[in-house]
Amino acid sequence: MLENLEKFTNIKRDVSEINLDPLQRGGILTPAAREALVEWGDGYSVCDFCAGMLDRIKTPPVEDFVHGALPEFLGIDEVRVTHGAREGKFAAMHALCEKGDWAVMDGSAHYTTILAAERAGLKIEFVPSSGEPDYAISPEGYQDAIERAYEHKGNVTMAVLTYPDGNYGNLADAKAVAGICHDYGVPLMLNGAYSVGRMPVNSRDLDVDIIVGSGHKSMASSGPIGVMGAKEEYAKTIFKLSSSKKNKEVELLGCTVRGAPLLTMMASFPAVVERIKHWDKEVEKARWFASELERLGMELQGDRPHNHDLMFFKAENLYEISKTAKKGRYFLYRDLKDRGICGIKPGLTRQFKLSTYGLSREDLEKAARAFEEIIEAHKKAES
Amino acid sequence: MLENLEKFTNIKRDVSEINLDPLQRGGILTPAAREALVEWGDGYSVCDFCAGMLDRIKTPPVEDFVHGALPEFLGIDEVRVTHGAREGKFAAMHALCEKGDWAVMDGSAHYTTILAAERAGLKIEFVPSSGEPDYAISPEGYQDAIERAYEHKGNVTMAVLTYPDGNYGNLADAKAVAGICHDYGVPLMLNGAYSVGRMPVNSRDLDVDIIVGSGHKSMASSGPIGVMGAKEEYAKTIFKLSSSKKNKEVELLGCTVRGAPLLTMMASFPAVVERIKHWDKEVEKARWFASELERLGMELQGDRPHNHDLMFFKAENLYEISKTAKKGRYFLYRDLKDRGICGIKPGLTRQFKLSTYGLSREDLEKAARAFEEIIEAHKKAES
Repeated sequence: MLENLEKFTNIKRDVSEINLDPLQRGGILTPAAREALVEWGDGYSVCDFCAGMLDRIKTPPVEDFVHGALPEFLGIDEVRVTHGAREGKFAAMHALCEKGDWAVMDGSAHYTTILAAERAGLKIEFVPSSGEPDYAISPEGYQDAIERAYEHKGNVTMAVLTYPDGNYGNLADAKAVAGICHDYGVPLMLNGAYSVGRMPVNSRDLDVDIIVGSGHKSMASSGPIGVMGAKEEYAKTIFKLSSSKKNKEVELLGCTVRGAPLLTMMASFPAVVERIKHWDKEVEKARWFASELERLGMELQGDRPHNHDLMFFKAENLYEISKTAKKGRYFLYRDLKDRGICGIKPGLTRQFKLSTYGLSREDLEKAARAFEEIIEAHKKAES
Repeated sequence: MLENLEKFTNIKRDVSEINLDPLQRGGILTPAAREALVEWGDGYSVCDFCAGMLDRIKTPPVEDFVHGALPEFLGIDEVRVTHGAREGKFAAMHALCEKGDWAVMDGSAHYTTILAAERAGLKIEFVPSSGEPDYAISPEGYQDAIERAYEHKGNVTMAVLTYPDGNYGNLADAKAVAGICHDYGVPLMLNGAYSVGRMPVNSRDLDVDIIVGSGHKSMASSGPIGVMGAKEEYAKTIFKLSSSKKNKEVELLGCTVRGAPLLTMMASFPAVVERIKHWDKEVEKARWFASELERLGMELQGDRPHNHDLMFFKAENLYEISKTAKKGRYFLYRDLKDRGICGIKPGLTRQFKLSTYGLSREDLEKAARAFEEIIEAHKKAES
């Protein structure tokens, strides 16, 4: 029994030079984070220095990071490190809502927001998007959704806005959404998994009550790790101390990321703060790349002009090719891979998402050229 | 604002050559895990290869590991990877118990078991230990605790046994505890944070219903990561799929360790399976070290003979020294550190725990000699 275990070791990560997967673009470690990973890799190395509260460790400066830098960075009163955005969403819902309550969320919400609500026993009322091609989420939609929940005699105790959503990269008017939610006394949680660490996001400016971010998705950290911030009035409930174990926060089960991922997030932080200042360049690159793909016959969905590196394309021309291509619907994945590009899910042709985040203009030119070559090659093959 | 961020980078882990902290001994990475950490460090690199379910990824062989190797290793029907033992305990309680139910657990339970129950809204009835010096947990104590909960008209839906407990390293008669719990129809969860990955533990042999283990504590993995196994009848509830998002398990929020820690656990697994075969040698080393400290006037608490590397000592002689030592109660920490040894919490002298796990006989001799020298030096200083 338990034989041939060597297959679990020495596994190489087989990815192409240019990875367009939105999941991966913001999580690439900085050199400093890579060093931290090796230095702090063992078990939960951070705990050597803990006197009972992870977020109060002074050396390494976890306390400075969690109670100083992160609240300023997110523009919010209290912050804790979590296992990821989804775990933050669940913790907030579990702490603030009662089973049977209602959560209102955008129709473009990430599946984990839905799962977090389901795990917390909440019913969901969605704010539908405007549909193709904009998929816009309107602030007024939140009013309607809250009203619909009221019609079910529901107690609405949480609203969530995905900012941007993970399909179309749309940035809704978060401040207007917050205003409407607050008119109804409902706290608004911002899911910033694709924004915090990529672009400027300030909870105070947007007037959101809770914010979650993802270290592995957008803060150049080794996963699993995320951040959760809350305004004081909600923080005291979310981060409530145990009734029997002093200094231990119930909703975090005492502490969360007790290992290397935390040190990678800290090590990357200066670079993350710096890269956010150049967000305009990222948007410019994204728009340029979108214009290239549109020139080739694909169609950008979502916000126009687009304001984020995450973009969704419809590509009827690629779909047509897939009908006759040798490799069928896998042709795009294979042909891109042959050209050193990955990140579009195998089998997708008619619609797919990608991200340009952190890629150089040269890499993006190479990627655009690859699409062009592939389309040309299949045109020739057909004629 | 947000200045002087360089302090978060380039932080060295300042630990001594010999670390006796029980938290750290079982989490030291194998060379293979260290390689995996570097290879898979970025963001959530594993997700490049995911078609929707983390535990079903075929390359790298996550599916083989989670659905093949781990169930066999733990001797249980279904296993998933979690963020750690505590997160597994909460998930099981949250899935299987209703708010207001009662959990029965040993009086030596780790604080996170208590927090998990508190987070799940459970009341707790403790099984008290026999107290000094054995701190034994008897199977009959579980019967009494369940009966006491019944007197409160409580619905007992979970029992937990810490195996071994994290203070005294005691291994209670888990099978007998399971038998009693089953007589009352209560599932028994084994907290194997200090056993799974260190010593042979087979859920089937012990007849436990749920088992949690800790990757960072005892499976040579980079944290945060753990494992949770369950018998089929409980697994179907704990790992229930979402009602709206197919292939996504609610209690795990879809997936848990979406990053490098999983690959480190896999990479260390062959070595972990191998090291368990030599558990008798670890117990022998622990007993030898305990006999050395006892020879020096300290007193081992807990099981005698001791059956685990985690040991708790009372040391009146060190406490006496602390009353007059220059550095007061910090003398032991400082004096050990001067000799290349760490892991006993700063300020502790009268009682402390330590672990001998994975240390060579030479290192243990060095550690024993350090205690001897320290005691001798302070004796001389006094006379």
